[in-house]
This record gives sequence, C-alpha cells and structure tokens, in this order.
Amino acid sequence: MKDRVRVAVVGGTGYTGVELLRLLSGHPEVEVAVVTSREQVGRPVSGLYENLRGHCDLNFSEPDPGLLATCDIVFFATPNGTAMRQVPALIEAGSRVIDLAADFRLRDTATWADWYGEPHLAEEYLAEAVYGLPELNREAIAGARLIANPGCYPTAVQLGLMPLLRAGVIDEHSIIADCKSGVSGAGRKAAVPFLFAEMAASFKAYGVTGHRHLPEIRQGLSDIAGRDVDLTFIPHLVPMIRGIHATIYVDLTDPKADLQKIFETHYCGEAFVDVLPPGSHPETRSVSGSNLCRLAAHRLPDGNKAIILSVIDNLVKGAAGQAVQNMNLLLGLAEETGLAQVALLP
Amino acid sequence: MKDRVRVAVVGGTGYTGVELLRLLSGHPEVEVAVVTSREQVGRPVSGLYENLRGHCDLNFSEPDPGLLATCDIVFFATPNGTAMRQVPALIEAGSRVIDLAADFRLRDTATWADWYGEPHLAEEYLAEAVYGLPELNREAIAGARLIANPGCYPTAVQLGLMPLLRAGVIDEHSIIADCKSGVSGAGRKAAVPFLFAEMAASFKAYGVTGHRHLPEIRQGLSDIAGRDVDLTFIPHLVPMIRGIHATIYVDLTDPKADLQKIFETHYCGEAFVDVLPPGSHPETRSVSGSNLCRLAAHRLPDGNKAIILSVIDNLVKGAAGQAVQNMNLLLGLAEETGLAQVALLP
Amino acid sequence: MKDRVRVAVVGGTGYTGVELLRLLSGHPEVEVAVVTSREQVGRPVSGLYENLRGHCDLNFSEPDPGLLATCDIVFFATPNGTAMRQVPALIEAGSRVIDLAADFRLRDTATWADWYGEPHLAEEYLAEAVYGLPELNREAIAGARLIANPGCYPTAVQLGLMPLLRAGVIDEHSIIADCKSGVSGAGRKAAVPFLFAEMAASFKAYGVTGHRHLPEIRQGLSDIAGRDVDLTFIPHLVPMIRGIHATIYVDLTDPKADLQKIFETHYCGEAFVDVLPPGSHPETRSVSGSNLCRLAAHRLPDGNKAIILSVIDNLVKGAAGQAVQNMNLLLGLAEETGLAQVALLP
Amino acid sequence: MKDRVRVAVVGGTGYTGVELLRLLSGHPEVEVAVVTSREQVGRPVSGLYENLRGHCDLNFSEPDPGLLATCDIVFFATPNGTAMRQVPALIEAGSRVIDLAADFRLRDTATWADWYGEPHLAEEYLAEAVYGLPELNREAIAGARLIANPGCYPTAVQLGLMPLLRAGVIDEHSIIADCKSGVSGAGRKAAVPFLFAEMAASFKAYGVTGHRHLPEIRQGLSDIAGRDVDLTFIPHLVPMIRGIHATIYVDLTDPKADLQKIFETHYCGEAFVDVLPPGSHPETRSVSGSNLCRLAAHRLPDGNKAIILSVIDNLVKGAAGQAVQNMNLLLGLAEETGLAQVALLP
Repeated sequence: MKDRVRVAVVGGTGYTGVELLRLLSGHPEVEVAVVTSREQVGRPVSGLYENLRGHCDLNFSEPDPGLLATCDIVFFATPNGTAMRQVPALIEAGSRVIDLAADFRLRDTATWADWYGEPHLAEEYLAEAVYGLPELNREAIAGARLIANPGCYPTAVQLGLMPLLRAGVIDEHSIIADCKSGVSGAGRKAAVPFLFAEMAASFKAYGVTGHRHLPEIRQGLSDIAGRDVDLTFIPHLVPMIRGIHATIYVDLTDPKADLQKIFETHYCGEAFVDVLPPGSHPETRSVSGSNLCRLAAHRLPDGNKAIILSVIDNLVKGAAGQAVQNMNLLLGLAEETGLAQVALLP
Repeated sequence: MKDRVRVAVVGGTGYTGVELLRLLSGHPEVEVAVVTSREQVGRPVSGLYENLRGHCDLNFSEPDPGLLATCDIVFFATPNGTAMRQVPALIEAGSRVIDLAADFRLRDTATWADWYGEPHLAEEYLAEAVYGLPELNREAIAGARLIANPGCYPTAVQLGLMPLLRAGVIDEHSIIADCKSGVSGAGRKAAVPFLFAEMAASFKAYGVTGHRHLPEIRQGLSDIAGRDVDLTFIPHLVPMIRGIHATIYVDLTDPKADLQKIFETHYCGEAFVDVLPPGSHPETRSVSGSNLCRLAAHRLPDGNKAIILSVIDNLVKGAAGQAVQNMNLLLGLAEETGLAQVALLP
Repeated sequence: MKDRVRVAVVGGTGYTGVELLRLLSGHPEVEVAVVTSREQVGRPVSGLYENLRGHCDLNFSEPDPGLLATCDIVFFATPNGTAMRQVPALIEAGSRVIDLAADFRLRDTATWADWYGEPHLAEEYLAEAVYGLPELNREAIAGARLIANPGCYPTAVQLGLMPLLRAGVIDEHSIIADCKSGVSGAGRKAAVPFLFAEMAASFKAYGVTGHRHLPEIRQGLSDIAGRDVDLTFIPHLVPMIRGIHATIYVDLTDPKADLQKIFETHYCGEAFVDVLPPGSHPETRSVSGSNLCRLAAHRLPDGNKAIILSVIDNLVKGAAGQAVQNMNLLLGLAEETGLAQVALLP
Repeated sequence: MKDRVRVAVVGGTGYTGVELLRLLSGHPEVEVAVVTSREQVGRPVSGLYENLRGHCDLNFSEPDPGLLATCDIVFFATPNGTAMRQVPALIEAGSRVIDLAADFRLRDTATWADWYGEPHLAEEYLAEAVYGLPELNREAIAGARLIANPGCYPTAVQLGLMPLLRAGVIDEHSIIADCKSGVSGAGRKAAVPFLFAEMAASFKAYGVTGHRHLPEIRQGLSDIAGRDVDLTFIPHLVPMIRGIHATIYVDLTDPKADLQKIFETHYCGEAFVDVLPPGSHPETRSVSGSNLCRLAAHRLPDGNKAIILSVIDNLVKGAAGQAVQNMNLLLGLAEETGLAQVALLP
C-alpha cells in the first residue's frame, strides 16, 4: 500500500473544521496528520466532536509551523485574518495551502481592509492565489500553491449565474440574489443571537445594507463576465442547521434564450453541479451532507424575467467539500474522490 | 351585563379556524355561538384542539343555514369554493359575513375561474364584497355586508408597498416580492409534502411560475396605486410553523425620498402596523401570535434600490386576527378590541 | 380609575424577565414601574425584546434599592445568588418579593451551598419564605412577604405527584421522573452548547448524576407527603424552545385505586391544572404561552405500575406565569387575573 | 471486475426504502437491480427522492416475483403484513430475504395477530427466521434464509440491556425504558398528526398503554437472558427527523458491579456499538446517518439504580443500516462494508 498524502487542518474546532475531518476521514488517498487548535491542545478531536469517535484518533495540537510544513496540503479553517499571517512561511516551505476563510479571496486590498477591519498582511500572495471554484478555475487550481476557497453564498450565486453570464443573455444590471442560509453559517461561536431559543421558529433578513460576501460575489461575477457586474444581495437566516438557497432574479436580454439548454450544456460533465428538469424547485435537504449544487432555471410566463434557484450545503460545497474538491485537483486525483456521499434525506 | 354579539365559525377544524376560536374566546364583546364541521359533528371543539379546553365548550355542528342566520357575524374558515355557495342566503337573511378564503377576493371572475378551477357561483356579490384590509379600506369595511379577508402573502406585501405607491416614489414595473412562509400556511390537510419529516430542516421555493396570491396582490396594488401595477412574486417554505417574511425590492424614482418618513407618516395612528427604526431587520417571531405587521425600509448605499422587509403571523394578521379586526370595524368597536396579545418570544 | 399596583422586575433581560413583562403588560391591575439591568441601563426594554414594542415603554435602569422599595411587588428574574443579597433590605422597606431564582427554595443551607456553590447569605429569611406553588400553599402565599417561585421541573413533577401522595396510593420509594425540557430552560446566555446548530435536530439527557432541581423536588414531595420521599430524576433537552414534559413512573400500593378520580377530585376547582380524560397524551404545545399544567394518569394493563404525564410551559407555569399567579394571591386578586391566555396552537 | 451481487428492494418508497438505497448505492459489492412500488411504477426512483439523482438510475417497477427471484438478496421495506405474503415463494426460489417490517419478528403467532390485526400467513417460516440483531445472533444470521430485521426501539433497548442481562447484575423486574424517537419513525404516510405544523415545537408521549414494539422487546430480552424478562416501555415523539434515545432505568442486584467494564468488555470488537467514557450523555446527532449505537452507563450516587443511555439513528441502525449489516453477514463480507459513514454533525 502506497503512502497516503499527509494533510493538516489548522483551526479544527469550528464547523468547517469538523466537516473537513468528516470528509477527509473517508478519503482513500490522504491521511490527516495534524489538527491544530490553540484552545484545545491535547484534547482528542473526537472528544470535541463525538461523531468522529472511531474515525479520527488525533489530538488537537499547537499550530507548529515546522510540523505543518511536513504536510503536503494545509487547510486553514480559521477565523478571517489568521491565514494571511501564517501562509507565506508555509508556502515558502513547500506546502500547498487551501484557505477556507476570506483572506485571499479579494484581490483588492482596500476592499479587503474595508470589510475585514485591518490591512492585508500578505499582499504579495494575492496575485498568485487562485479562487477555488473548480467549475470556473479548474486548471489554475491544479497548479496553484495557494487556493482561496470561496464563501458559501458566493458559491451558490456564482454557480447559478455563470451559464447565463457566459451565454450573454442577461442584463448585468438587473441581478438580485435573495439568499437564505442555515444557521451553521454563523459558525460555532458563543453569541446570544445564535442560540437555539433565539433562532428556532423564526426567520429574518440580516446585513441588508452590506455583507462581506457582496464584494466577493461582485468580483467573481465580473471575472466570469469579463466586465464589471454588480448585484443586489440580501442574506436571510433560516431556522435549520445546513443549507443555502439562492433565489436569483435576472432580466433576460434575449427573450428566446433556452435556459434549460444553456444550463445543461454549460454544466455537462460537471460532477458536482446538477441541473434539474424544467419546472423543478430544489430543496436544500437534497444536498445535505453532499458536495452537490442543484440548480433550476425558470422563465416567468409574462415578460423577460428569469428566476434561478440554486441550493448547496453551506458546510460542504460551500466550504469543506469544495476544499476537498480543490485538494483533489491539486493532487491530480479524480475530482470526486472521497466526495461521493449521498445527501441524508429525510 | 349586556348581551354579547353572536358569531359563528363555519369550518372550524382548520388552522385559521382554531386561531379564530383562540382570539374570539378572549374577545370581550362577542360570543361564539356555533362552530360547524361536517366531519366532526358532535365532537367537542376542545377535543380536537386541546389548547381550547376550558376556553370553548361548544361541539362541532352541521352547517345549518337557519342556525347560522341567527348569528350577527358568520366567519367562513372553509376551503376555497365553499363560501360562495352559502354566503348569498346568509346575507339575504341579514347576517354579515367575513370570508377567510379566497371566494370574494378577486373581482374578475375569469381570473378567479382560472386560478380556482371552477366558475364563480356568486358573481352578483363580488361588486359589493369589500376587501378586508383595514389599513386600506377601513370605512368601506365598517359598512359592508360581505368582507373578503385578504390572503396572508397579499397582506404582508400590500402593507409593505402601500406607503410607497401612495407617495409615488417607486417604479411600478420594478417590484419583486420574495416571500417566505411558515408551513401552517399550507393548512391542516393530510399530505405527504407537509409531513414533519419532509419539511423540517429544509428550505425551498414553490409555485415559481404561478401562485394563487399573485392575481390578488396584483389587483390590490393596482387599487392602491390607482393604475395597473404588476410584480414578480416568488413564495418559499420555511421550516417553522408560523410567520411570513416578505423581502420586497423596488427601484426608487425619487432618489431623495425619505423612506422612513414616508412609512411613519403613512402608518401614523395605525394600531397594527409597526414601522421599525432605520436599519432594522424584523423577525417573524416578533409578531408570533399577534396581529401586528412590522416593517423596515432600507435604501441600498449605491443606486436607487430600496428594500422593504415586512413580517406578519400568517394565521393572525394574515388570517384570523385580521378577520377579528374587520369584525370590530363591522361592529363599531375599537379596532384593537380582543387583539392586544403580545407575541410569544422566545 | 384607581391606581394600579406598582411592580418592579429586577434582571429583566433573561427569558423569564421578558415573559414576566409579556404577562404583566396585559395585567389589568398592575403597572410595571421599573425594569432593571446593569448591562442594559438606558436602553429601551422593547429595543431588546421587539415583541414588547408598543406594550412596554420603559428603559432598563440600574437596580436602585430606593426606587425598588417604592414598588409594592418586586420580582427577581436574576441569576441564582443575586436575590439573597438584595431581598432583605427590600423586605425591611416594606416591599413584597417574588424570587424566580432558586435563592429561597431550599430550607437546608448546606444543601443550598452544595448545589449553588457558595454559602447562603440570607439564612434568616429562609424560614419565612413561602414556596410559591399555589396549588399547594395558596393560603401561606397570600400572607407572605417573600415567595420562592418554584423551578420548572419541580412544578411539573410535584403537580403530577401531589394527588397520589396525598391519597397515599403509591410506593414512595418507586418514583422515577423522566423529564424533558425545551431549550429556553437554559436561559439567555452566550454558550456554545445552546447554539441553534448544536441543539437543533438532536436529543440528549444531561445531568444524569445530579441536577439542582433534584433537592428541590425531593423537599417538595416530602412536604406534600409529610415524610421523606426520594426519587430518580433525569432531565433531557428537546429541540424546541418552550415546554416541559414529565413522564412519571410509580408503583401503586393500592391496585384498585381510581387514578382518574383521584386526580379530578384533587384538582377540582383549580384554574391552572387540567386533568385530561382517561387515555390522553398531553402535548407540550397545548400549554405553550399559557399558565396551565395538563395532566394524564395511566395505569399499565399488567401489574401495578402507573404513569403520570405532566406538561407545562417552562417559562409560564414553570416561571413567570406562576409568579404572576403568586402576585395575584398576594394582592388578593382573582388567581386568574391577567393569565387567561390560550396556548398558541399550532 | 467481478460481478456484483444483485439485490432488490421491495417497497422502495418509504423512509426505510430510500435509506436502504442511499446505503446500497455506496456499497462496493452489491448492485441494486430492482426497486418495486405498485404506486410509482415507471417513475424514476430519483424523481421521488432527489438526493438519489446521480446515484440511482432505476425506475420503480411492479413487484414481479420472477424478477425478484433473480436477485440474491431481497429486502422488504414494506408495511407490516406484506412480506409474509410474498416471502415463502422467494425463499423457495432460492433468494435470501431481509424483512425490515415486523412480519417475522415475533415467534408467537397469537401475539402477532393481537398486535398486527390479522392472522399470520406464513407461520411455517417463523421458526427459521433469524432475528437480525448481529451483536446477538451473528452466526445464525450468516446462515439464514430469512432475517427479521429488528424494530428501531427494540434495537436501542436491547443493545442497552444486553451486557447487563448477560452479566446477571440487574433485577429483571425493574426495567423501565423511557424512549424518545424522531418523527421519521412514523413513516412516510399522509396523516394529519405527523404534519410539520402538528409535530414541530412540541413533545408528547404516545401509546402509553401499548405499543407494537413492546412484545418484540420482551421476547428479545427474554432470549438474551434465557428466561422471562418484562419491562415498562413508554415511547415519545421528539420534534426532529431522525434519532432514538432510550433512557433505561434498572435496579442493580450487585451494588459493586463495574458497569463501565461490563459494557466495554461485552462490546469489545463490535464495529457498531460505541461505549462512551464514564459520565457521558450521548446525543442522537452523534449517530445521525451512521450505523452506530452509542451507549453510556451511569450509576446514581445513592442507592442501586443504574441509568443506561442508548442512541441510534432509527433509519440506520434502527432499520436500513442494520439490514445492510445483516446482508454483509449473509454474503460473508466484512460487517462494516459500505457502512463507514460518519454522522453528520452539526
């Protein structure tokens, strides 16, 4: 049996961390060698996350740069602002890095500083960082040293708009993305607004006049289109743990465009994008625990409005699963390796 | 002690029925004299709805026209298509009717037949039926014989747009209402898609290319504006029992419009519309069990887009509570009578 | 119009605080004059709890003893250990106090110190404190200066066992109370284990080898029986906000005991205890938002085992509602005053 | 590549059916050749269950005995009373059958008829049917023609008691199993009591005086102990989709028994039973989607009472996963084959 690839997870105590460990523990080609957490040093990983008992027998360790540098792939599942402090040394030491936080997603450092509240500390790596949306950047990802894993909302929205932007059939000034997320998107941090008794049995919008994912989506859509694209983006919180549902409204410039064909053609051959039959309404549960994005395209009966429905599991295709997909590309493995989970339904 | 007004509830076994009984049981001026249900004849109402034990000691009875006609007010909490068969006789007998179903909401009989699947059978009463949105039609309601109680989505959307349409500050062709509803909106009928195991922990859109509330909203907004108004309306299902959240997108024609002032002025003095401070995100739980609509108006930082957030409890302001509010108007009572419940939070 | 009784709520930011304010805001005989919170001084109460907008226009204030002493009734909705520091001065100043925390529930100071982690600081008031379970201590409550409002589990369990202990038909060494609580019982404090993403879609026991409510239940049952009674008590967490369900197992010493009659006779005339018909399974939702305890008594077909099912809303009959019921007794009002809410169902 | 084993699923439209298909679609040694459903003939399986899109490309077919007989293994995921009509012919034709319903679980036909409402129609197969609890009957399962897959509650309770009964340290007349189940246990049938709006945000007991799983547990425990064992068993419904939590109360006859050691020794080497460290409280989410049973044993500080906490996913270890485990035994495969899923958490 050949040696497995050694990987590390930095900041393994959050929800994207445990989800990475769930996926990596079943991956046939890699071995998780290190899981770090400053707060939990010495504690068994499976003591914090009971679902990993029997699947992961590591203890949390200090984030030791020397030890991390012995790993081929280092995932950062840390709060924003951590990776930019540690990544340069790791890259220079020869590791390849997949950052699940926002540190390397925005190319414009002024925008980054605006939204994340401090100057960027690793500007010189922004140019080489590859935005890790495989359906967009597959080849660049395979050769990268540093991958900026996309945010959850940006993944759902960009996958929902990419075929239309590429086909050139929509008015790029008309885009509205009304997005709904499960509560795990807020992370595993002690805060009153995310208590069960605060979140259950209620629904609300948040961040109406500004959300950190807005500049990321704007940059991504502009890259896809090859010119400036803007949008209105409103996020909401749904009383469920996992799942993102994007309802995207666009005006068609070509009233005869065959939306179904545009989507099916664009995503033909993609392992993790599933274009549903005409008239479908994807449910978030249909991707719960899986790396799939399911899409449906509707044209309204009157006028030129199209509605795109896009669902993902925010912790999988919106975070850890996409990171594994990127790792597979980095390692030259089949993209689906270790990512064949069927969504849990009901 | 003076006699209380006798009221009847026809079709008291659904969710709007039990909610009516909850509200009426605490109303100081009325007495529920009759609750009908063909299927449950003879059964104590509180045997079906345990929350009513000690608050309602009636048994379900046959819908006997003679008995109903002894009541001053008759509520129809029946499936669509029932009231139009029974209302004419009751009106002629002198009762006043509040229909919580859709039978008298649309003035255009062709539209009604299209959406409800049969010809309208009481056309001659459509002209006199008053659309029971008190914030719009208070005076007409007070003098009506027949009130068409609005649908839940239409209530949330119209209250969210009324001030802007009246102020003439929005582009009437730009309206998008992305609406989210709790599952009780689907009613109390045995159907696989609404099982707990199908609905919990998931989110989806439905009826993207057409929903019965679309023509009702379209008619209502046009009445408000005094000319044809259309909109894009997409409903979604949220894994919670009660609550509607409408996220309404409009383009402002007057970029200097003071949205906060427009809303506060328009709803000044309204007992059941609460305009939140600037920057607010109303939560559906803040109106759970209460007859309030809470609203917030946002203008996006760039451009001319405004976002209106509107929440109601679909079973209260979206159904039974609004029906009681209409009854109060009919009876010349203070509009808040019996409707002072504070929302249950958490 | 005569003056309303002035009441104060000390520590009004937790869930029992907001629930007290919900109930008191609709109470016809009292006026909430003061709501204190050290952390939120100056903030409108309705800014923290949106459901109170329009129902409570106070701001949070410092807990000023002089101001509190101007109130006839002072509720403590504070963490354990707070009331015992402030109550003596208030009582001496002439206020009557209802403590919703545990400070005055246990008569034995050693037991108190064991479970609450510090010595009791107001021992001299323990003897006069009346345990505020009206169905047990109605007369003593009416004349008390200091009321120890019972815990939520203790209320559900004691009401479920009182008729049997008084009738002398059960083996007092056989009692097992398997209890299940909604998450609001954990209070409104920022803590990872009570996050939505931790609590939703899961069920677990906790505190198997010891819970603070055990000595309180033990003391209460012994008081009821007039001799030492012990029990096994295991609490569990249910993914819902409100509600407690106690499943109580006892061995009958009298195999011919008519359980239904014992319960109905014992609770005849009680406004807030509802004995369900034979064969019933009370649901927690049937008391959600109401001050009722609903009970069902079952005898198993074989053997001498009886099962008592007891449900309450932990925030109402298990906390704030019972406190208002106690206040009504203190003020010589009808016990139901301001407590007529029908449970919200569905 | 060698041929895969052909398997069939009869009655593939219920929740155990879809869960079987989820697990079998990832199983490396078998191929699902047939999925039957009378109501859905011709419809793609993945049209009913969107999570299976891309993982199962079969259509539902009529339950054709000839076609089924071409399969090595036939699973019955049908309502009770179906398998007993079809199994004899299949067995005689050489297929091996795993029945997930109750048809072959009870050896006593009178008891069966009492609880399932009709005489048993395949009595002659009851003697050879092996009760499919691998931790109890591993060898017999491997050689069986007909396996009666255990019920969900019986699995959780028997695994929780087996070590204690075998060690002979408990009073067999003292057992109480207070069990809590997610709503998917009720199956996928249109019925008002299981609607989201009926089940969410509430908790209740049901079947207090009798549940079909009682005789099954009684028979199972007696088989384990080698003499008659009885118990008190009360089921409850939890507002969550998946999961069973059994809280089991027993009196110890040996007050010095080392419970932890008894459990760890008994289950040493078992792939699907995880004995937690002392003091643990297993959560149902820790097994969600996985075939594990997690157990914790507690001894109360005073007296001789022990509490065993046992959690499973009712659809996996309580149904479909256990069926696959049994299939692996039948086929001589490693018991874990295709069952390595890590539970989804959060």
